[in-house]
Amino acid sequence: MRGKFISLEGGEGSGKTTAMHFIREWLEAHNVPYIMTREPGGTPLAEDIRQLILSPRDEKVNDTTELLLVFAARAQHLAEKIQPALEKGVWVISDRFLDSSYVYQGKARGGDMAMLDLLANWVVGDNKPDATLLLDVPVDLGQARVIQRQHQDRLDKESQVFHQKVRDGFLERASMDPKRIKIIDASLSLPLVQQQIEDQLLRLSEAWSGAV
Amino acid sequence: MRGKFISLEGGEGSGKTTAMHFIREWLEAHNVPYIMTREPGGTPLAEDIRQLILSPRDEKVNDTTELLLVFAARAQHLAEKIQPALEKGVWVISDRFLDSSYVYQGKARGGDMAMLDLLANWVVGDNKPDATLLLDVPVDLGQARVIQRQHQDRLDKESQVFHQKVRDGFLERASMDPKRIKIIDASLSLPLVQQQIEDQLLRLSEAWSGAV
Ligand SMILES: Nc1ncnc2c1ncn2[C@@H]1O[C@H](COP(=O)(O)OP(=O)(O)O)[C@@H](O)[C@H]1O
Ligand SMILES: Nc1ncnc2c1ncn2[C@@H]1O[C@H](COP(=O)(O)OP(=O)(O)O)[C@@H](O)[C@H]1O
Ligand SMILES: [Mg+2]
Ligand SMILES: [Mg+2]
Repeated sequence: MRGKFISLEGGEGSGKTTAMHFIREWLEAHNVPYIMTREPGGTPLAEDIRQLILSPRDEKVNDTTELLLVFAARAQHLAEKIQPALEKGVWVISDRFLDSSYVYQGKARGGDMAMLDLLANWVVGDNKPDATLLLDVPVDLGQARVIQRQHQDRLDKESQVFHQKVRDGFLERASMDPKRIKIIDASLSLPLVQQQIEDQLLRLSEAWSGAV
Repeated sequence: MRGKFISLEGGEGSGKTTAMHFIREWLEAHNVPYIMTREPGGTPLAEDIRQLILSPRDEKVNDTTELLLVFAARAQHLAEKIQPALEKGVWVISDRFLDSSYVYQGKARGGDMAMLDLLANWVVGDNKPDATLLLDVPVDLGQARVIQRQHQDRLDKESQVFHQKVRDGFLERASMDPKRIKIIDASLSLPLVQQQIEDQLLRLSEAWSGAV
């Protein structure tokens, strides 16, 4: 049976990477075959594209350029890694996916939404995640968590206003597609966040014969 | 007055780089301000994208990925280099531009023509070259010329059939837009090729006050 495709979304410091570790342990414990991946990236070429997008540079990066680079990486990731895994019955867990493009390149940077829809239809089409876990935290809390981490890339340096647009953008996406996008209250303590994630994993694995 | 935008198109070995040198000398001699550039590439970021496209790699490069990378580089090239130069009255001469995408990613690799049109409209729009010089040679002759050169990249290694599709693709583009795309018979001796190019430069500079 086809694997399940789960994406994790949310602003910086919302707890996506932390959730990836928990999901890995859960899938191991339940003998579910899986791969963990991330966007932008996921294949050697897509990771090279990620480098181009995230490295700080003197040259101003045109918004259209950034949007096209993100979808170039996604096309590669889907064709060479995600789809082959799902077809083999392997679950795919991705740290960020399509919704991040709508929120960062679209809402937060004021990108061309019509073009975003065209690219999404063309590159992703029906290959949307079976479930998207939106880790939602107030901007202040997310930022406070980020400050504790070492490495800061270009996106970490954006302003407070930007991060608020990001949070609002994700919540708007969730309200438009509530069947797929599940809001996780990530402001709670780790055990309570993990319990919400486990509920979603149980729901997906019940619909997936052979596991659990 | 706005600068003129000229692109050079044609298969490998058709003489584009050789023509660039001739055009440079002609513009210098006629005191026309200019920049020479190329695609994919033309800015530091766009050149980085060019590297991703042209370097040989083990991973299969998805056609959609390649198409999006080419247009990502083009968006950057237009916004950061071509348009600012033209607005300052500087002529821009580019070794390859939009027509190469239609021919390589479209015709030769069987890419999605509807998507190509959408990307072309979105990224290039009205910023098409004022003139495109299509250097046309039979495939055998172009290949014979290429063999004499040292460096061979990924595209050089494609088959004879592929190169024929490229030539036919360029000629089809020229027949669809004969006002912009001028066919140069590049199978002739260098002086006769240069004479055809000079005719086009004279035509453009007559429409451009301040030069010649
Ligand atoms: N529920 C939580 N409560 C408190 N701290 C958390 C919680 N979830 C994550 N963190 C911490 O917050 C920081 C950012 O989490 P991380 O998973 O790296 O976020 P993201 O990957 O979404 O940027 C890390 O130091 C992590 O340990
Ligand atoms: N009209 C011509 N007659 C003979 N040789 C030519 C002519 N134009 C170019 N060449 C030679 O053919 C080779 C390929 O030319 P080049 O300008 O590098 O082609 P392109 O840039 O289109 O691949 C070079 O060695 C060049 O000197
Ligand atoms: Mg993370
Ligand atoms: Mg050349």
